[in-house]
Amino acid sequence: MDKRIFVVGIGPGDKGMLTPDAYKALHASDVLVGYPLYLDLLGEEFAEKEQLSTPMRKERERCVLCLQEADKGKTVSLVSSGDPGVYGLASLMLEVGRDRPDIPITVIPGITAALSGAAVLGAPVNHDFCLISLSDLLTPWEVIEKRLCAAAAGDFVIVIYNPASRKRPEHLKKAVEILLRSLPGERPCGLVENIGRDGMKSEICTLAELGRKEANMFTTVFIGSSATEVIGGRLVTKRGYSR
Amino acid sequence: MDKRIFVVGIGPGDKGMLTPDAYKALHASDVLVGYPLYLDLLGEEFAEKEQLSTPMRKERERCVLCLQEADKGKTVSLVSSGDPGVYGLASLMLEVGRDRPDIPITVIPGITAALSGAAVLGAPVNHDFCLISLSDLLTPWEVIEKRLCAAAAGDFVIVIYNPASRKRPEHLKKAVEILLRSLPGERPCGLVENIGRDGMKSEICTLAELGRKEANMFTTVFIGSSATEVIGGRLVTKRGYSR
Repeated sequence: MDKRIFVVGIGPGDKGMLTPDAYKALHASDVLVGYPLYLDLLGEEFAEKEQLSTPMRKERERCVLCLQEADKGKTVSLVSSGDPGVYGLASLMLEVGRDRPDIPITVIPGITAALSGAAVLGAPVNHDFCLISLSDLLTPWEVIEKRLCAAAAGDFVIVIYNPASRKRPEHLKKAVEILLRSLPGERPCGLVENIGRDGMKSEICTLAELGRKEANMFTTVFIGSSATEVIGGRLVTKRGYSR
Repeated sequence: MDKRIFVVGIGPGDKGMLTPDAYKALHASDVLVGYPLYLDLLGEEFAEKEQLSTPMRKERERCVLCLQEADKGKTVSLVSSGDPGVYGLASLMLEVGRDRPDIPITVIPGITAALSGAAVLGAPVNHDFCLISLSDLLTPWEVIEKRLCAAAAGDFVIVIYNPASRKRPEHLKKAVEILLRSLPGERPCGLVENIGRDGMKSEICTLAELGRKEANMFTTVFIGSSATEVIGGRLVTKRGYSR
């Protein structure tokens, strides 16, 4: 036992993408804290560890819980799927722990969906790209819309996280409508669902078609730049080597 | 031996960030192809493997070499530091191999510098962000400038790859001057050099100071959004939980 907090990214779920650093931190921990779905992804191997959680949208309480457990002298892992520093709890944990320099907080990065999903589709993020979350729980929709417009104006590849959920089934469609104001309908796009998990599926389509696709909170969406092509059935953004 | 190509991301260099999938692919390979620096990062463990390379800027030839080796019935790993799908050779390999469906090409993602560097600094990419390379070897500077302006207009966190090299020592300074047209000089920024390697160093500064910093091809630069703060000595982009 050693009073400290690891903020651990476990990647998409498949153990083949869990880094040795993350594995080591989980094993060194006395208690694992996380949304139950993420803890379940760790499987049998860690089922014996003490596991704690707080409900969805109680993220601040979850970080406070980590501090409380560390205060008992424990080593704590706050577990995120993907990378905790990409739409995860790393920033909130650092904020909540700001006045506790006696409790070291270490962020351990993981393979985020922009990388794992890209590898499934081919190489869509092989040149300048951006990540935009369509969740308006914590970000006003006007900000999301402004970023979509800026990303299109900059000819970035766009990776969309949280494209839809039960409460916001229309967000992806709304985003596509915004992008179609300036991008061509034939622009190549891709979707990957349940990356590295049971039931993984992926699909390549055009931007015009994308607005009619089903998406959920386990879907990651890729929208090509002007350098993106479908090559041999893969979604590929060229770096310019062939010019 | 099995005729196939893995395009493998080994992360920043530290074995703690090499995924099990990458490790397995390297071990299953008869030959490792890559820029010598990346192959050296793999260390003793893979020194016995046949290793091949082509000079810098001979990337197309390197991909053709992979096809030629696979054609001999070999399993080939084309090795990149970080993620091969992020400014690496994944897209070029898929392009070069497009007419060879008999040779399966699998992309294995890795921890790219935007993620590993972010974890060193704190949590700077914890909300919408974009990656921009300042290398104008394959991209006209006008495109790079357009993307910097769009990223600033969209209030994205910006991660800069290839901020400078011996032949382009002024690129970071030029980029900062462009960003200062619309962003405040006190905007928090960070630099990380040699992530996960000997001689790693990191620093937090303001955007105004960033233009005077030394950078090289092993430096990754982070420029905050309006939601980025320095909290307890870490660079943190808030997701909005505290509002």
